Amino acid sequence: MENYEEVDILIVEDNPNDAEMTLRALKKNKLANSVMVLDDGEKALDFIFSKGRFQERKKTVRPKIILLDLKLPKVGGLEVLKELKQNPQTQIIPVVILTSSKEEADLIESYRLGVNSYIVKPVDFNKFVEAVRELGYYWLLLNEQPK
Amino acid sequence: MENYEEVDILIVEDNPNDAEMTLRALKKNKLANSVMVLDDGEKALDFIFSKGRFQERKKTVRPKIILLDLKLPKVGGLEVLKELKQNPQTQIIPVVILTSSKEEADLIESYRLGVNSYIVKPVDFNKFVEAVRELGYYWLLLNEQPK
Repeated sequence: MENYEEVDILIVEDNPNDAEMTLRALKKNKLANSVMVLDDGEKALDFIFSKGRFQERKKTVRPKIILLDLKLPKVGGLEVLKELKQNPQTQIIPVVILTSSKEEADLIESYRLGVNSYIVKPVDFNKFVEAVRELGYYWLLLNEQPK
Repeated sequence: MENYEEVDILIVEDNPNDAEMTLRALKKNKLANSVMVLDDGEKALDFIFSKGRFQERKKTVRPKIILLDLKLPKVGGLEVLKELKQNPQTQIIPVVILTSSKEEADLIESYRLGVNSYIVKPVDFNKFVEAVRELGYYWLLLNEQPK
């Protein structure tokens, strides 16, 4: 996707299978009009703060939801979350941690850093699709965000 | 409800019609096993911090979600949100603002204070029931919380 302005859903996920599965689940439910997939934490921060390859992106156009994996190359998910939630300009973007980790330390740290929601990826494919459908509807259609 | 330990959903709402409608929507979807309704912000803070009439409540047992109205008697919703999100012990409880206010200032302040999600109450009854169903499923069944 070339039009960075219209990204509703930013998926930060280094596992191509998981990214593909999430995209398919969104498409199946007609929730994938404007999705960007980035495969490491550095690119995610560049996107969010309009730096590097994303320096032309308007910062004022914010995604409706960021789906953030925890284990990511270069910059980990918790660090991305921290930088995002420490900055008043980006703090208002909802972030859902979407991970296979059920570790209590990850949960506590995510909530401490201000995550909006934390979802453990269901292992079963159909349950995964259902979870993505529910979270897509919730954050795209039900949740309100400042302009 | 007398057993304060088992409250999964805390509804803070002073409008009896809205509280009743939310309860009916939860019941209809079998999501109302353990719900507490409180009608002002002071009672909400007493419940959350185990003070006053709730001093016997174990603080370590946390609701899975707090549905918080903004316009509340005694202590307003934003003040409840602020106190809750400033305290490391209660910060991890997900809070959804459920309000009729679409005012930008309320949205910005809620996100600044660390709200997990902000939902504008649909005026249409069927849409309201649907919204409560979706948010109930999302926060009770999909979202993970630290123990």
